[in-house]
Amino acid sequence: MAELVFVGLGLADDRDLSERSLERLRSCGRIFSEAYTSVLAPGSLDRLGRSVGRRIELLTRTEVESERILLEALGSTDRVGFVVAGDPFAATTHVALRLAAERAGHRWSYLPSASIVSAAPGFLGLQQYRFGRIVSLPFPEPGFAPASPLRSIAQNRSRDLHTLVLLDLRPDERRFMSAAEALARLVEPVASGESPAVPADLAVAVAARVGTESAQGWYGTCAELLGRDFGPPLHCVVVPAPTLHFEEEAALASFRIRRPAPGR
Amino acid sequence: MAELVFVGLGLADDRDLSERSLERLRSCGRIFSEAYTSVLAPGSLDRLGRSVGRRIELLTRTEVESERILLEALGSTDRVGFVVAGDPFAATTHVALRLAAERAGHRWSYLPSASIVSAAPGFLGLQQYRFGRIVSLPFPEPGFAPASPLRSIAQNRSRDLHTLVLLDLRPDERRFMSAAEALARLVEPVASGESPAVPADLAVAVAARVGTESAQGWYGTCAELLGRDFGPPLHCVVVPAPTLHFEEEAALASFRIRRPAPGR
Repeated sequence: MAELVFVGLGLADDRDLSERSLERLRSCGRIFSEAYTSVLAPGSLDRLGRSVGRRIELLTRTEVESERILLEALGSTDRVGFVVAGDPFAATTHVALRLAAERAGHRWSYLPSASIVSAAPGFLGLQQYRFGRIVSLPFPEPGFAPASPLRSIAQNRSRDLHTLVLLDLRPDERRFMSAAEALARLVEPVASGESPAVPADLAVAVAARVGTESAQGWYGTCAELLGRDFGPPLHCVVVPAPTLHFEEEAALASFRIRRPAPGR
Repeated sequence: MAELVFVGLGLADDRDLSERSLERLRSCGRIFSEAYTSVLAPGSLDRLGRSVGRRIELLTRTEVESERILLEALGSTDRVGFVVAGDPFAATTHVALRLAAERAGHRWSYLPSASIVSAAPGFLGLQQYRFGRIVSLPFPEPGFAPASPLRSIAQNRSRDLHTLVLLDLRPDERRFMSAAEALARLVEPVASGESPAVPADLAVAVAARVGTESAQGWYGTCAELLGRDFGPPLHCVVVPAPTLHFEEEAALASFRIRRPAPGR
């Protein structure tokens, strides 16, 4: 019986690792990671490997999902580390991996870290308990542009709740949905004849690179934000509730973009 | 113009601090903390002060909310640290402090850390995007036992969403609401004549000490869990959605408490 240690790596780079996680990783016979559910600054895993004193073995999605390599490692060493940017269990495939390890008779442990789910509301100064269901916006595919994320935003707003909109990413293709792409989706009608989930004159917030030194926020109407360049990924969007607490309003005001002077 | 650095300290103790946060705190002329919105293992702040090489000054709620001490510190040094267990902006008073610093012409920065908001779902293996609005259960006071948390649970369930129930704490009085106390509240009728928010035969999850080495979870009906001792704080409760994804079901099953043998 071995132990599979799930370690959250934070939102920016290898320096987000806690002392506790570093110590625990040093006690692991092998350490794996993946780069398809989230992504850190380039070189983070190499530097982390040097800090730990052990090479981090990068697995593909197929390798993680097949579970074979990880289960074999658990069969041959007492403790195996699995390091994931953000929260290790935000991705359901990693819960599946933990269940597979349990079924094979192994233990697991969990070292949580910063997650965009709490850090984006914190950065924008919005109250965590006023958020409704989180929404993930996938890249549209031919024949696949689900309306459910848009309907969830509308449902949250009807209950006077904010919505955190997480944006799709395909790190292996260096494809990261920008907030501008996301906003363009949100202001489109969900279906022909329906009104859009988010009216173009609704003020929304964009947060980019939260948890890194270049974290930045914007607050303005969709129409004002649509054509904007928000810089390098990762981006997310928050569609606020219809009513704001006065401190939320003040916090968002500090991110208010300057409107172009009228008539000029 | 100085900088107020908000640093999240994680969920267990001083060893949860990241290398990035440690470096940033070392560059602060003064460092403050508070112990009323959350709490770490005893001695954590002393040890943290030794790692940083500077005493951490503990402020009372009144001192934080008056903002005077922190604004004075910003007036006399280039960078001031404010260290908070969990996420620094989960508490609205800390957003108010950040706004006060901005109004006084100062900058702020934010180093997020693990928060119970993402770590409890992760620990229990529940999908983050299937959670509705978070609920905080306050200690009942004479004439103050709000029904709104209980109604939010019912609303989330009606949308097939999980609810994370955070429990009140008063660290200065060494008072922490236990999951057993919380469950007793949940199975009571919201108002006379109404049905309870959570039927006693509904299976719910309890998570205790998430993020620490003694993290533990339970899954069972309220009736089964009600009299149980969940060990030292902090506890939280998750009321699951009416339907579970098969992996969520498998994850919760691993926390299933053993029922007493029937008829014995």
